[in-house]
Amino acid sequence: MMAGGEFEIISRYFNRKTTYRRDVETGIGDDCALLNLAPNQTLAISVDTLVEGTHFYHDIAPDDLAYKALAVNLSDLAAMGADPAWLTLAISLPKIDHPWLQAFSDALFEQLDYYHMQLIGGDTTRGPLSMTLGIHGLVPAGKALKRSGAQHGDWIFVTGTLGDSAAGLALLQDKLSTATVEQRDYLLKRHLRPTPRILAGQALRDLASSAIDVSDGLLSDLGHILQASGVGAKIEQDHLPLSATLQAVVSREEAIDFALNGGEDYELCFTVPEVNREAILVALENLGVEGRCIGQILPASEGITLFDEGKKLPYQPKGFDHFTA
Amino acid sequence: MMAGGEFEIISRYFNRKTTYRRDVETGIGDDCALLNLAPNQTLAISVDTLVEGTHFYHDIAPDDLAYKALAVNLSDLAAMGADPAWLTLAISLPKIDHPWLQAFSDALFEQLDYYHMQLIGGDTTRGPLSMTLGIHGLVPAGKALKRSGAQHGDWIFVTGTLGDSAAGLALLQDKLSTATVEQRDYLLKRHLRPTPRILAGQALRDLASSAIDVSDGLLSDLGHILQASGVGAKIEQDHLPLSATLQAVVSREEAIDFALNGGEDYELCFTVPEVNREAILVALENLGVEGRCIGQILPASEGITLFDEGKKLPYQPKGFDHFTA
Repeated sequence: MMAGGEFEIISRYFNRKTTYRRDVETGIGDDCALLNLAPNQTLAISVDTLVEGTHFYHDIAPDDLAYKALAVNLSDLAAMGADPAWLTLAISLPKIDHPWLQAFSDALFEQLDYYHMQLIGGDTTRGPLSMTLGIHGLVPAGKALKRSGAQHGDWIFVTGTLGDSAAGLALLQDKLSTATVEQRDYLLKRHLRPTPRILAGQALRDLASSAIDVSDGLLSDLGHILQASGVGAKIEQDHLPLSATLQAVVSREEAIDFALNGGEDYELCFTVPEVNREAILVALENLGVEGRCIGQILPASEGITLFDEGKKLPYQPKGFDHFTA
Repeated sequence: MMAGGEFEIISRYFNRKTTYRRDVETGIGDDCALLNLAPNQTLAISVDTLVEGTHFYHDIAPDDLAYKALAVNLSDLAAMGADPAWLTLAISLPKIDHPWLQAFSDALFEQLDYYHMQLIGGDTTRGPLSMTLGIHGLVPAGKALKRSGAQHGDWIFVTGTLGDSAAGLALLQDKLSTATVEQRDYLLKRHLRPTPRILAGQALRDLASSAIDVSDGLLSDLGHILQASGVGAKIEQDHLPLSATLQAVVSREEAIDFALNGGEDYELCFTVPEVNREAILVALENLGVEGRCIGQILPASEGITLFDEGKKLPYQPKGFDHFTA
């Protein structure tokens, strides 16, 4: 009597014969997946959990949830300069909802195929809706981008624009409204469908001295680089890349707050030695990704300071933390 | 304001400088962990989720939970013949309970050290108590034990004894009682502290034709071998290894039912070609692990049949399934 049961869910929705990777010796269907790495490849592994109510709303569309769950994890690979390879998915479901599972798994496999990734295992359990994704990427040995390489004098860059995702979240929470549908759609898309900067991350491998993805908020995430590298920083907040839409929808002050503290932008924040500054801009331009210099690494004794049009501001760090938020 | 927050929990309880592995380039503290495999090593990955109410009771002791969560995952590596290496832990907690976290993490690291494993990453979120462990092991290239290698004529073996764990669960559920405290302690320990058969699994690598761990129940798990290998089987149920305690506490019929269908024994079920039958018994004896032959692989057309003292019985498969149980 396994109709509608765990094994049936896995075989019906998650054991698809789509992308095959040659480095997968055994995928779903044994006690473990078996993977063979090429010589001189380093394995990069990251794990993220998404819980209903904490990371997404009850009424999120299943395809948006699948997209975001994968994008959040891909963003961790991007921040290391890794090439996506394999995914594990542990999902808890309160009940078996076939249309939901169909839409969720369709969207997941569309993204997996796009990134030439293979789902290699997981677990399906009954429980409150939540999921833990384990993402595995590959990076040439010695080339991974770490948080610990920033040096005094390096320039601080970010990709894309910051703060849009926080504005999108505020829209979902009815804390914000827009003048036009186009503005609303843009900000919601930036929140629900962030673009993991996979190719940009790979382009940074030989040029950046450190990198992180902006998940908790720029100041919080840059703080991790500063701590790991034993350095300080100054940020020119008038240099923050703000989208035209964000600037049209909220005040300048709020836009800057969203950009500094909002989180979930999934852009890359990285540091670049002076010698590679031009090369970085060329590399990103070739990918069609905007890169903006927003500050510079200082000695640790300087802490982290914000400037606005050349004037030093008082600084109050705010990072997102699931247990204190 | 991170006191008691996510970062503080990770650094206080889970980012311990205990076992260091030379193949871990970067562990906890960056966007991804970075791992370097030796040439000719195949990576084995398994993921298991444990949810309160489904996989453990609310009042389980934190050290028992840590032990079991890891043992369940180690058992998947054992079934592949893999050597444990790295763990990821994604844990959802309803609140921050420092004594609980201390006891849980102490027990977890005690086991990790025992198996020379390193915790390389994870995620801490607020939510109903649940956890997803991702376990990573290493196996010499081409040597992993798969479910798909069983051949007509191979002998079916199991390690240890079967059914004790189901009896221990029945005790926790007040569905069973024992005459002595020693009997109760033995059965509870078999349920709460199963022994992952890591060394036995490695000893089987050159001798067994297929293997699986007994998590859902012998018949259900053997069924996976039969399906993957395209074969059938007969089981001599009077050959099932039953502990003296189990036989003293329940009827013969119930002991056999627990052994066939109970699950969570985390023993290995494996198949062995006739030519390796003696070598297997010697290899297991050298490890102090009992191995018992309980049946033989037949052609697929025979399905799966149970015999008792040479007499064929009607067969009704029952496997544990989270959505139909």
